[in-house]
Amino acid sequence: MKPEALTSAAFAPFGDVIETDGRESRLINDGTCLRFDDLAQIDVLEQGGRPGLSIFAADPRPSPLRVRVLERHPLASQAFIPLQSQPFLVIVAEEGRTPVAERVRAYLSSGRQGVNYRRNVWHHPLIALTPDARFLVVDRIGAGENCEECVLEQSVVVEL
Amino acid sequence: MKPEALTSAAFAPFGDVIETDGRESRLINDGTCLRFDDLAQIDVLEQGGRPGLSIFAADPRPSPLRVRVLERHPLASQAFIPLQSQPFLVIVAEEGRTPVAERVRAYLSSGRQGVNYRRNVWHHPLIALTPDARFLVVDRIGAGENCEECVLEQSVVVEL
Repeated sequence: MKPEALTSAAFAPFGDVIETDGRESRLINDGTCLRFDDLAQIDVLEQGGRPGLSIFAADPRPSPLRVRVLERHPLASQAFIPLQSQPFLVIVAEEGRTPVAERVRAYLSSGRQGVNYRRNVWHHPLIALTPDARFLVVDRIGAGENCEECVLEQSVVVEL
Repeated sequence: MKPEALTSAAFAPFGDVIETDGRESRLINDGTCLRFDDLAQIDVLEQGGRPGLSIFAADPRPSPLRVRVLERHPLASQAFIPLQSQPFLVIVAEEGRTPVAERVRAYLSSGRQGVNYRRNVWHHPLIALTPDARFLVVDRIGAGENCEECVLEQSVVVEL
């Protein structure tokens, strides 16, 4: 499969697209700055969790990408925002009864777009497309089992 | 005054430097990614607050910068992370009894460094050095009086 462009509408079942295009803003700081407010639902407080800020530095995976394992976080959302305006690949799976491979969706971030996976949304671990690609990550810090994995009965190949 | 290089040690009285240099990491995601974990103390839950993710798009202020007003947030921390690896100016004031102008400190982020102002730390609103400079901001969303201003008895000029 080939990835689609990442849009808020297409991604709505999975979480938030963190971007400014098409969003409302207000002028602050003596008119020097536009604030695009509250772009993601950060959901990290379950079972005594707290919000954590981390940086991931990732290298590309072999191409074409063969999707075999997805993961999800039952206790929290998880947000990824590119720090070098670098495009990256976003792979998720819809809920449903058909085999997981049929429910996989792939999106390409423009690099000016981050994503926030909603709690319990199946997604592929971070997929960088450039070396040493840096992302800010906002997720849950705390005890508890917050990662489940799912092995696809049939792998899905994603080509850029 | 001229800004100093931003370092964790110098900035410790004011908050966190969000960066990877010199920080520990661990390898995740099948060895494709380094995770630099939990780089800032996000303190936003006071009085029913919740963590918010916003984007600021800022233009430079007139140069040299004349610092006249500082602000602080009594209910929460506030983090700024550059989204285009762009350097920016960070101005804070130490606590103390001498006039505020004498306690002002200026730091220059390399562009690979964000900052997280601790609750109640006096700081200047965002100072971009390049047009349409974009920053991810993590702060508190919620009701309550979360901004105080302080007008300096004597302004401070900061030159790059």
